[in-house]
Amino acid sequence: MLSEAQVFLRCRECGKPFGHILAYVCDECFGALEASYNPGRLSVSRSVIEARPRSMWRYWEFLPLIDHSKKVDIGAGYTQLIKADRLARKLGISRLYIKNDTVNPTFSFKDRPSSLAVSKALEFGLNSVGCASTGNLAGATAAHAAAAGLPCYVFMPSSVEKTKIKQAALYGAQILLVEGTYDDANRLAALAADRFEVGIVNVNLRPYYVEGSKTMGLEIVEQLGWRTPDRIIVPTASGALLSAIYKGITEAEHAGLISDCSVAITCAQPLGCSPIVRAFRENSDRVEPVRQPDTIVQSLAIGDPGDGYQALKVVRESGGTAVALTDDESLEAVELLASTEGILAEPGGAISVAALKKLLEAGEVGRDEEVVCCVTGSGLKTVELHPEAGNVRIIPPALEAVRKALDLR
Amino acid sequence: MLSEAQVFLRCRECGKPFGHILAYVCDECFGALEASYNPGRLSVSRSVIEARPRSMWRYWEFLPLIDHSKKVDIGAGYTQLIKADRLARKLGISRLYIKNDTVNPTFSFKDRPSSLAVSKALEFGLNSVGCASTGNLAGATAAHAAAAGLPCYVFMPSSVEKTKIKQAALYGAQILLVEGTYDDANRLAALAADRFEVGIVNVNLRPYYVEGSKTMGLEIVEQLGWRTPDRIIVPTASGALLSAIYKGITEAEHAGLISDCSVAITCAQPLGCSPIVRAFRENSDRVEPVRQPDTIVQSLAIGDPGDGYQALKVVRESGGTAVALTDDESLEAVELLASTEGILAEPGGAISVAALKKLLEAGEVGRDEEVVCCVTGSGLKTVELHPEAGNVRIIPPALEAVRKALDLR
Repeated sequence: MLSEAQVFLRCRECGKPFGHILAYVCDECFGALEASYNPGRLSVSRSVIEARPRSMWRYWEFLPLIDHSKKVDIGAGYTQLIKADRLARKLGISRLYIKNDTVNPTFSFKDRPSSLAVSKALEFGLNSVGCASTGNLAGATAAHAAAAGLPCYVFMPSSVEKTKIKQAALYGAQILLVEGTYDDANRLAALAADRFEVGIVNVNLRPYYVEGSKTMGLEIVEQLGWRTPDRIIVPTASGALLSAIYKGITEAEHAGLISDCSVAITCAQPLGCSPIVRAFRENSDRVEPVRQPDTIVQSLAIGDPGDGYQALKVVRESGGTAVALTDDESLEAVELLASTEGILAEPGGAISVAALKKLLEAGEVGRDEEVVCCVTGSGLKTVELHPEAGNVRIIPPALEAVRKALDLR
Repeated sequence: MLSEAQVFLRCRECGKPFGHILAYVCDECFGALEASYNPGRLSVSRSVIEARPRSMWRYWEFLPLIDHSKKVDIGAGYTQLIKADRLARKLGISRLYIKNDTVNPTFSFKDRPSSLAVSKALEFGLNSVGCASTGNLAGATAAHAAAAGLPCYVFMPSSVEKTKIKQAALYGAQILLVEGTYDDANRLAALAADRFEVGIVNVNLRPYYVEGSKTMGLEIVEQLGWRTPDRIIVPTASGALLSAIYKGITEAEHAGLISDCSVAITCAQPLGCSPIVRAFRENSDRVEPVRQPDTIVQSLAIGDPGDGYQALKVVRESGGTAVALTDDESLEAVELLASTEGILAEPGGAISVAALKKLLEAGEVGRDEEVVCCVTGSGLKTVELHPEAGNVRIIPPALEAVRKALDLR
């Protein structure tokens, strides 16, 4: 048990400090609260971290859990950073890595923030948890709630892929499919958080929740031998993951784990829901909400991104860029990644690969850069989005049928 | 590059030694060939292994690849061994672990043998690979073939779950859905292997292929601190995984990594396709094929198990047992595992949990035993098998609808 004073909240906008409390909005300026750490907590060496078990919790000094007996760990994080040489050759770039977060316990990166938020719910003594979800968070929160023994309430737009709905239901959560957009589901979850005292992981537990996603950034720098790549491309919905990856990397520099946190953080969004990309491209400081997202990339269909402004700031500060991709470009990137590296992503995960392809072609990313594409969720959840392909054939059990089907001799 | 003499094949039945060649049947007695290692190769210490990267390839001395430049490694293996305390309490057993192989690169344990077999195909200079599959091997072989840059031909019964077909197709493999059983698909694959010189991973590459599955056993003993549990329960189709787990553990004893390889290896099969269980229960030495498997547990629907006799021998020698489960028992085990531990398995993966429940109730497994249940594949591939559940509701975006749906106040 660590001293509470080592972890506290503070307003991201006006800087007002808060204690270690269950809150998410500044009562002075309505800014978002974020977790902060006393420098003493972050004094940990590379070798100490390297000797720890391979889960996101190896970076516990950077995570705002105080009582570690409350940790809900079903194995999130420390996923492989794959050197993607075959894909790199196809794209015409020399150094490319895939951060493969499809192999998390519930098959998306959302296990990272969920593991942390559900642990915090236990620490704060909450009796139930929940989330507003575009699909992946539903399963992640439901699974961690199951492992914690807490009831779980999931709010999702009814348009979410069937597999994601069934997945969350199988963990035993109560699933509410809201007739409306993600933003409608999110507002409802926020109301439910207040009215029924539910710990909604991405609403009232949000300042803690987002810290879990930092571990993707910490892992990338550790797996590269404690240094940053030139660029990290991040599939972006609310902006929380993108912001968290950068926060993790800058904190790693403050802690002395890396000597330089320079890295161009690059944002990829679907064209039919790309408010952050649009603000970036228009040189605007204001992330204008998209009222009706129009994309099959459900997992990134957040019209009013909660951390949009922060993400925009990170992209600019870090020297990154932002790019929007058509649905076809994302679907094609799924097939490109699967057929070159054997990694099956959902379109919202492979969009980082689509973004790299587009930015290379446009000359906005150099072919000599070292790039990490974050691949955030498994394509098993979204096979329904791909049309029947010509490489599937039904044949009778006869060798001649094989020869004909495959044109072999 | 190691000396070839360190790895060779020999007949499992008559013992005749073969070289390091592409063959799978003894030309004297028609017995199955298996990989063997000179004792010198297996001299590796615990600490050397522990310092290696976390993939199945950390045990390379136990794997029959000679030229490591041919290794096709997309991250298979070294999956978590989860201490399943909530599930243990539900079942009334004190020490229970889940070996969670749902989080492999293609979301089943089949990545282990595929990684090895496709590497061997490269080493032998083959121009294409393929497999006969009940579903999971299809994706695993296709993904590794993609990463190796080899064409891939998959033979599956047409009854396999749609998600598994689409998954394999997305990696770019040629998929042949054979009108018939798995055994029909398997025979066709064997003919194609001969006729078109394809490296069918589980036919002509089989002696090498099965060695990959040993790593599940090696990981279990390492993750327990270099010792065996009392019992390992294994979902069983061809019998190859079960036999391989035991082979790995006995080899670990020979190598001095563990002092005692005692462990009751226990076989779980679906009632509608349980030839090994039947032979065990009837005290027979002959595994009588099941002509028409009758089960929704597609991944275990192999009527004529290639390693059935070997598996039966291992179960008996190791003091294990064998049990058949109804489809409902396997489906219920999926929900039990998901709702207690947050691990989503397919019915053919959770069948090990169903088996434990049944054996505990029957008094055939003691409540003081330390048990490991192998959970071999992800439930994302089989959500279609579960009926719509009562915990999924569609609501309008209004707080009152939430209150009513959840009966909250």
